[in-house]
Amino acid sequence: NTNCSGMSPKITLELLRQLRQAMKSSKYVSEPIQAYIIPSGDAHQSEYIAPCDCRREFISGFNGSAGTAIVTEQHAAMWTDGRYFLQASQQMDSNWTLMKMGLKETLTQEDWLISVLPENSRVGVDPWIIAADQWKSMAKALSGAGHSLVAVQENLIDAIWVDRPARPSTQLIALGLKYTGLTWQEKVVALRSKMSERKISWFVVTALDEIAWLFNLRGSDIEYNPVFFAYAIVGMRTIRLFIDEKRMVNADVREHLQLDTPSSSELSIQLAPYESVHSELCAICAGLGPREKVWISDKASCALTEAIPKVHRSLIPYTPLCLSKAVKNPTEIQGMKMAHIKDAVALCELFAWLEKEIPKGTVTEISAADKAEEFRSQQLDFVGLSFPTISSVGPNGAIIHYRPLPETNRTLTLKEIYLIDSGAQYRDGTTDVTRTVHFGTPSAYEKECFTYVLKGHIAVSAAIFPNGTKGHLLDSFARSALWDCGLDYLHGTGHGVGCFLNVHEGPCGISYKTFADEPLESGMILSDEPGYYEDGSFGIRIENVVLVVPAKPKYNYRNRGSLTFEPVTLVPIQVKMINTEMLTQKERDWLNEYHRQCRDIVGAELERQGRKEALDWLIRETQPIA
Amino acid sequence: NTNCSGMSPKITLELLRQLRQAMKSSKYVSEPIQAYIIPSGDAHQSEYIAPCDCRREFISGFNGSAGTAIVTEQHAAMWTDGRYFLQASQQMDSNWTLMKMGLKETLTQEDWLISVLPENSRVGVDPWIIAADQWKSMAKALSGAGHSLVAVQENLIDAIWVDRPARPSTQLIALGLKYTGLTWQEKVVALRSKMSERKISWFVVTALDEIAWLFNLRGSDIEYNPVFFAYAIVGMRTIRLFIDEKRMVNADVREHLQLDTPSSSELSIQLAPYESVHSELCAICAGLGPREKVWISDKASCALTEAIPKVHRSLIPYTPLCLSKAVKNPTEIQGMKMAHIKDAVALCELFAWLEKEIPKGTVTEISAADKAEEFRSQQLDFVGLSFPTISSVGPNGAIIHYRPLPETNRTLTLKEIYLIDSGAQYRDGTTDVTRTVHFGTPSAYEKECFTYVLKGHIAVSAAIFPNGTKGHLLDSFARSALWDCGLDYLHGTGHGVGCFLNVHEGPCGISYKTFADEPLESGMILSDEPGYYEDGSFGIRIENVVLVVPAKPKYNYRNRGSLTFEPVTLVPIQVKMINTEMLTQKERDWLNEYHRQCRDIVGAELERQGRKEALDWLIRETQPIA
Repeated sequence: NTNCSGMSPKITLELLRQLRQAMKSSKYVSEPIQAYIIPSGDAHQSEYIAPCDCRREFISGFNGSAGTAIVTEQHAAMWTDGRYFLQASQQMDSNWTLMKMGLKETLTQEDWLISVLPENSRVGVDPWIIAADQWKSMAKALSGAGHSLVAVQENLIDAIWVDRPARPSTQLIALGLKYTGLTWQEKVVALRSKMSERKISWFVVTALDEIAWLFNLRGSDIEYNPVFFAYAIVGMRTIRLFIDEKRMVNADVREHLQLDTPSSSELSIQLAPYESVHSELCAICAGLGPREKVWISDKASCALTEAIPKVHRSLIPYTPLCLSKAVKNPTEIQGMKMAHIKDAVALCELFAWLEKEIPKGTVTEISAADKAEEFRSQQLDFVGLSFPTISSVGPNGAIIHYRPLPETNRTLTLKEIYLIDSGAQYRDGTTDVTRTVHFGTPSAYEKECFTYVLKGHIAVSAAIFPNGTKGHLLDSFARSALWDCGLDYLHGTGHGVGCFLNVHEGPCGISYKTFADEPLESGMILSDEPGYYEDGSFGIRIENVVLVVPAKPKYNYRNRGSLTFEPVTLVPIQVKMINTEMLTQKERDWLNEYHRQCRDIVGAELERQGRKEALDWLIRETQPIA
Repeated sequence: NTNCSGMSPKITLELLRQLRQAMKSSKYVSEPIQAYIIPSGDAHQSEYIAPCDCRREFISGFNGSAGTAIVTEQHAAMWTDGRYFLQASQQMDSNWTLMKMGLKETLTQEDWLISVLPENSRVGVDPWIIAADQWKSMAKALSGAGHSLVAVQENLIDAIWVDRPARPSTQLIALGLKYTGLTWQEKVVALRSKMSERKISWFVVTALDEIAWLFNLRGSDIEYNPVFFAYAIVGMRTIRLFIDEKRMVNADVREHLQLDTPSSSELSIQLAPYESVHSELCAICAGLGPREKVWISDKASCALTEAIPKVHRSLIPYTPLCLSKAVKNPTEIQGMKMAHIKDAVALCELFAWLEKEIPKGTVTEISAADKAEEFRSQQLDFVGLSFPTISSVGPNGAIIHYRPLPETNRTLTLKEIYLIDSGAQYRDGTTDVTRTVHFGTPSAYEKECFTYVLKGHIAVSAAIFPNGTKGHLLDSFARSALWDCGLDYLHGTGHGVGCFLNVHEGPCGISYKTFADEPLESGMILSDEPGYYEDGSFGIRIENVVLVVPAKPKYNYRNRGSLTFEPVTLVPIQVKMINTEMLTQKERDWLNEYHRQCRDIVGAELERQGRKEALDWLIRETQPIA
């Protein structure tokens, strides 16, 4: 049901020939390699990647968000999951074999390699873009079958990629205390206190959002993610930042990082070239005492992980920065709330505008998404979108990761459900909101399904749970009403949201899929987004960003304390889509209180901004239900 | 608040001296060992163990269900968890150090060993009672610190245990088709078909309940668990049963196993001594072709696991027998239902009797438990209890694993809540039921708490969920009403229940603690037992055994099908304890329908058995609520 591109496949015969030549060339490898693995990621294991890192797309044509390519002397194969079977088959030419992950008959990468390789083969991979744990399991499987996994220092795709874009080096923004609540110096001190608690000498920071958060800096190297390419190594007395020095000429940034101010040496930053992180880390490790330990994320690249000798290496699933960043401080919370009020203003405008324009038959998925961006861009401190807008009409709404393209673009009408999942980056916060609306008269069945989803949304949002509860334990609350009538949705219920950072961040979430999430804590910010998707007909999703706050129920078992959620998103939920008879009194009360907050808080801002039509729309859409 | 025994600690000085001598004796070890590990379990990783396997208790005096002892030349240390801190400290003398697991400052066994051992130490353990995965992690930690883990073939506790009881060799019962629904031959054929599907040549069966289930045999080697000591190795053309041959003289059993009847050689059983399993397995492995694989549970002993060379070894978390056993066939379901009806008859009699007797002031926790056993023993096919009865009054009810002892025995009164968690083994099924009742007038607070627990019980029991859902996803449903007012309970919500087998069995369960449970399937039988415990005051638990059955909700998303639970336990839930105003209409309907079933089904059986007083009690206790 999805025709993702309509594009013809990329012609890859010549590229594959060049790659296979490189695999044998003494310029790159001491001995020929019989296979080369091309993972999806960048050297920081980012979810979104920059154009210069789209190596798997370059060699194969397939540009989905997940996929691993392996090229041998005879074969070229691509592993991807069910979301991308159709798209990959359309974007790749006949030189490629699609390996459909999740199907029983599909071999794993390891088993496939073992089945096609000649004896004693060497399999190459760039150690910078394969995570240490993936390296380990692949190396083990190959060696068990008499082959070996080989780190190829120069990336062989880069070697044959003539017009490869340069690594972005965008201008940095220094965020003041007004946005961050804590200076980067305070963050370094807090980090060091955690390091000293656990007797850690050094911490190697590899995740881009952790570096941005630590130094209170933002960039725009990767679309939608306000991050910049850098590494950091923090010791108890030194701070090293590995970054393109050209971007350090900006006076604001120099001042912010106190680069030209003599300061306490423990809090002065030593700059070094981005590329020198490996040699610097090796130099640091060479000087370690016998019991000294170095922290690095267990998701970091093989290259950096292996630079730390095993006796000194301490792998951690969630770094202290990841955990600190997830718990927003009062300033960040205030900023997130402000960003969401501004975002709500833009969406009220959008919905008021759509109501007027749709009857003319000229609004499409793409133009509606553009209009949403236009309204958002008028708000203070707007920086850009936080992810590609999902703007979908009727059957397109059932494609969960839909992005409208000219070939799929449908017109908004009075007859079909419209789902818009969108968000923005503002200097004070990141937004992510989904609303599902009907501009005519929804059918009884559409209302019924919408109401189940709403019940699930409220069940999570209003849930009270003990301190220390992990988010995955709340996932079933979102599904209960759907399950009761035999329905469900095949995605998680919520993800962590950064503060003017990545719209998806760990270590918390609400999903049936994981068990390794960290317990929820007051100050964490997540999405709450159950849905229902009827293939070929419509999609429904109701998403708010919510803040974890202390709850004060009647009792306090073992003094553990309780938590609940407070909606941060303040955009009306369309009452027309609700079968109000299906709601309990508690659910009605929740909805009326939510709409009261939307009216009071967003209404005041609309008034202040003089946006009269949107204010009228808001007041109409937030009338209490009986 | 728990005084588990009142016993004085065991005097262990002399025993420890003897053990330390054995650790240096060339009779047992080629070179002296500097530490010896004494795990809790038996060679089959049973939850309950026979007296001859209580080695950790023998050496230390501590008889809780969980604990590991380690003895070095200088130290003796015991690791156990929070349930047993008090008990262990009372049962062990000053030669022992209690290592409180779960506290931050407590070293792990590995770290403690490394901290106390001299350089290049040898640590011994009996490879038959340590699981292969525990061996692996311990060996790795020790070798990382320059020590080594050594398999000591003769158990050193057995070597110094003068009066060690013999391994039980109780009489076996052969279960006919009327109880099992499938002959053991049919089960072997089904097992082989799964083996051939996965290209497995041999399967080593080590869990006692799997062996009992496969051969439709029961024993009484371990209290409460109708199992017997044996191993089995099943190949595509042979079946070997390793068992004490003395118990094979019974004509019924010989006939059942067709030991004297010439039959198709593929289905004839070869008997061998229990002790010969290791040498036989080695002989089998010596004859394997290069690609042949042997299945063994990943929880099996190190000794048996290591007997299979790594290239042939296929470790499985849940064996095909464990999975087949969990899904009850129609005959087993019918048997479980019958057993629960008989069990309900006994409990109706108990509660009617208690009502009459308690006012006299002569009923205690122990005498009530004895009376329950007496009533149960009058029922057809009664074999014994399925676990020690938890019979607890007032504050004792808050001790989750309470078992009344003369020193703790309280009298049942009209003033305190009484909690009884009990069950039995019948030839047709295993029962496990908890009821919490008040024989006077419960306080408003007690009723409030009881009603939260009841709401949780109903939320699980009435839940509808998609095929393929794992039990842990239902755990929060049981807690939601408690969480809403700040309460909770610190145990799981449900466990699998065997059919005339162990009252606790895998691979399914309902708990926040695990993620590795297998999806629920129609035919599985579990407990549903939320609770609430107020330390020093009372305990509440409402437990039914429930059967997973297909549900037929309005819709059927992606044709996945839905499941729900059907109560198998049919004992009234005391209405006096309920604040009915707190129930929703759906909950009231559930309760009335449940009580209607109790009245109709158990009432008919009480009538048939002519138990008039209990019938009157049942009819009174099952009146519908408004």
